[in-house]
Amino acid sequence: MTQEEELHPDDVQQHLREVQELLARQKVVEDLVHRQDMPRHELVENLVHKQHEASLRAKLDELHPADIAYILEALPLEERLYVWDLVKAERDGEILLEVSDAVRESLIETMAPEELKAAAESLDADELADLAPDLPPEVIQDVFQSLDTEGREQLRTAMSYPEDSVGALMDFDMVTVREDVTLEVVLRYLRRFDELPDHTDKLFVVDREDHLKGILTLESLLISDPELEVAEVMRSETVISFTPEDEADEAAQAFERYDLISAPVVDSEKRVIGRLTVADVVDFIREESEAEILSKAGLREEEDIFASVWDSVKNRWAWLAINLVTAFVASRVIGLFEDSIEKLVALAALMPIVAGIGGNSGNQTTTMIVRAIAMGQVEQSAMQRLLKKELGVALFNGLVWGGLLGVLAWWLYGSASLGAVMTSAMTLNLLLAASAGVMIPMLRQRLGADPAIGGSVMITALTDSGGFFIFLGLATLFLM
Amino acid sequence: MTQEEELHPDDVQQHLREVQELLARQKVVEDLVHRQDMPRHELVENLVHKQHEASLRAKLDELHPADIAYILEALPLEERLYVWDLVKAERDGEILLEVSDAVRESLIETMAPEELKAAAESLDADELADLAPDLPPEVIQDVFQSLDTEGREQLRTAMSYPEDSVGALMDFDMVTVREDVTLEVVLRYLRRFDELPDHTDKLFVVDREDHLKGILTLESLLISDPELEVAEVMRSETVISFTPEDEADEAAQAFERYDLISAPVVDSEKRVIGRLTVADVVDFIREESEAEILSKAGLREEEDIFASVWDSVKNRWAWLAINLVTAFVASRVIGLFEDSIEKLVALAALMPIVAGIGGNSGNQTTTMIVRAIAMGQVEQSAMQRLLKKELGVALFNGLVWGGLLGVLAWWLYGSASLGAVMTSAMTLNLLLAASAGVMIPMLRQRLGADPAIGGSVMITALTDSGGFFIFLGLATLFLM
Repeated sequence: MTQEEELHPDDVQQHLREVQELLARQKVVEDLVHRQDMPRHELVENLVHKQHEASLRAKLDELHPADIAYILEALPLEERLYVWDLVKAERDGEILLEVSDAVRESLIETMAPEELKAAAESLDADELADLAPDLPPEVIQDVFQSLDTEGREQLRTAMSYPEDSVGALMDFDMVTVREDVTLEVVLRYLRRFDELPDHTDKLFVVDREDHLKGILTLESLLISDPELEVAEVMRSETVISFTPEDEADEAAQAFERYDLISAPVVDSEKRVIGRLTVADVVDFIREESEAEILSKAGLREEEDIFASVWDSVKNRWAWLAINLVTAFVASRVIGLFEDSIEKLVALAALMPIVAGIGGNSGNQTTTMIVRAIAMGQVEQSAMQRLLKKELGVALFNGLVWGGLLGVLAWWLYGSASLGAVMTSAMTLNLLLAASAGVMIPMLRQRLGADPAIGGSVMITALTDSGGFFIFLGLATLFLM
Repeated sequence: MTQEEELHPDDVQQHLREVQELLARQKVVEDLVHRQDMPRHELVENLVHKQHEASLRAKLDELHPADIAYILEALPLEERLYVWDLVKAERDGEILLEVSDAVRESLIETMAPEELKAAAESLDADELADLAPDLPPEVIQDVFQSLDTEGREQLRTAMSYPEDSVGALMDFDMVTVREDVTLEVVLRYLRRFDELPDHTDKLFVVDREDHLKGILTLESLLISDPELEVAEVMRSETVISFTPEDEADEAAQAFERYDLISAPVVDSEKRVIGRLTVADVVDFIREESEAEILSKAGLREEEDIFASVWDSVKNRWAWLAINLVTAFVASRVIGLFEDSIEKLVALAALMPIVAGIGGNSGNQTTTMIVRAIAMGQVEQSAMQRLLKKELGVALFNGLVWGGLLGVLAWWLYGSASLGAVMTSAMTLNLLLAASAGVMIPMLRQRLGADPAIGGSVMITALTDSGGFFIFLGLATLFLM
């Protein structure tokens, strides 16, 4: 790459295409030779093969680990493993960190314990902790043995915090300074480094026991008079720090709110034990939002797009099973009213409308409430007020849209009373949907569960069965 | 705040509670005096009122603008406007930038043109461009007049790019240096600044015509020998830069992939015209994922949690209207088969199961495909391969779950042929769902539309109507 060239964001797709082309060319040669089925062509094949392999290897060597991860994810299994074999062994660790969980599994499965151990040993303690759950226990054991005391301590610390806590996201790469030295001394100290840890925008000022006294931004280090002492330049008020027990979600919101790049993590005695960076936070935000979108569709995890049919079935079956149960319950509710349907078959055609609109409306309500809860803006005391508003919206929609459908039903089936039942059922089911949409997430929160998960299934189940029951029940009461 | 205290991420909720308490205390006094209805108590009321107001004002003055924004969002309209009035006028601009769109509207509505103008004038050009769409045209006109030539040019530039482009996210705060000076000179130059622009982790090295020659990280500036020239220390290869026309989404992926903090934005002749920072990217990622989650539930935008019933109705009506139409179409499909249902009323109870499971399964498929397309990992050429896999999953699920339901139907209604129809209909509808789940987002992408939007509505419409048609059609053919 010459000085004139610059990386553009779409370059990674360019890289992917180049790799795919090299793989395709390789395949053409193989196919050609195989088709001719001539044993003495093996020599030629080997030569051409080697040549392509070499250019592929060269291409991979110049790529950023994140780009290699991207390419591995985009390749079908066979080609993925072929490319994975060509990657330099010492880069295995950092690439495994970058690929998605599903693809990581597919790569680790093919690696020998020795390879895994070598890959793991190239990582920092906090990175190792991220990878550890996917590694075989004997590999972890071996790696642990090979660490020094500090490394073991860090690995133990990093692995001891739950997945969504600050402790699980923090790293141990930080530069600390004392407050009684001059900036000149700090500058000379920094020049002894070959490089600073990624995302160093500030140094942590600590005392002899590592207690956090303040922060010294690189900015203030650069713009201040070098003769000044750290204590005169550092910021000691409103320093944002976290404890390893803090929830990652709250830390992410603080990073967004205060535009942080890095922040110290301190223990209960304010001793600096680690550091949280915006890179970890961005990854966390992305993963969280993906998890939310996937779980809304009932997917357990991001699927490897080239996963086998069987792996996909496993990822999706739980949701289908739950839906089958709720659909079956709704079906039995209808079964209760088979007599009425037999007498007035129009009921069968109209009932899915009542159920469907209720489900949609309830999911709108619950999406709003869940987001407000996640932002911490809804106290339990606000429940009554929110419920009142949502019931107002439901009443309005029920009368307007339900009224419209009532008129349609009247026109289609020539029965004004059927129309009236339709309108009443729509309104009642929308009121049910609104109550459930507010109360299910708020009750889940009060019980300490994640308000976002599973709410949609419960509401749909309720509005389906409830909608059928209300509509068919009203029809049985007033039309039979 | 003393030196010992540190901001913890949950502090903003602490702030919110304090403000709410002050507001509540104020109210108690007002209510008390009003209830006694004694005119000479007005003096006392005024005194106490003023005292509370002063402590509230003092509290607000010490808060970060993002925290005030958070508190404003969490307060009901009346209290929100009261607090907004107490905020210092010169902070209005930065707070308006931080609040959500819905809350911003509610605040701007109450402000006089003069106030808005003053608020707008306190902002940088790129911030002004973000706020401009919500301001009355005459205010923008006035503000534009008050800018200098450079400011006008920047505002025009920032407003000329579409919402989801790098141009709309970039700012104009950057520090550039020449390559033929020593680091010592750069260090002296930086010491003339009172502060560096937020998120400065690198300086942009440019020539006389502002052409990008490379980047000088603060890190290399700090750890290198000050006698060296910029050209010897700067990185000129694999510099990641963007053009203002690049899609924000691709830039966000690059920031994530390469862990960037800031990056130069260059025009077609490689002249540096702006800068993109991780703070803008994080905001963008959060907004994107919220928009996706909201649009999945058919909400046009994040709702102010204290919005009126009427505002909520407006935000949600489009989706309900669409669903009403698709539900009505499905209802008419059932209407076609009323004769069959009259003869065999069990069909009415079983048909929602076929339709519902199809919709769930189709949405799982489409969620996977949309995410893979968004990552750029699915070429149109992969369509056939993906379709084959999804059809495999659908066939498996249809035979297993459909078979189970078939047996249940047989057991419930004592008809083996009804069970067979149930199983076949489930399988066929799942195959329909899988085809639609793959093809709808891929066709939308080929037509240049956003594959994520509206796909779920179309698939549900198809699997509802299709499920009823397949099940009732098969039943009419084989059971009547």
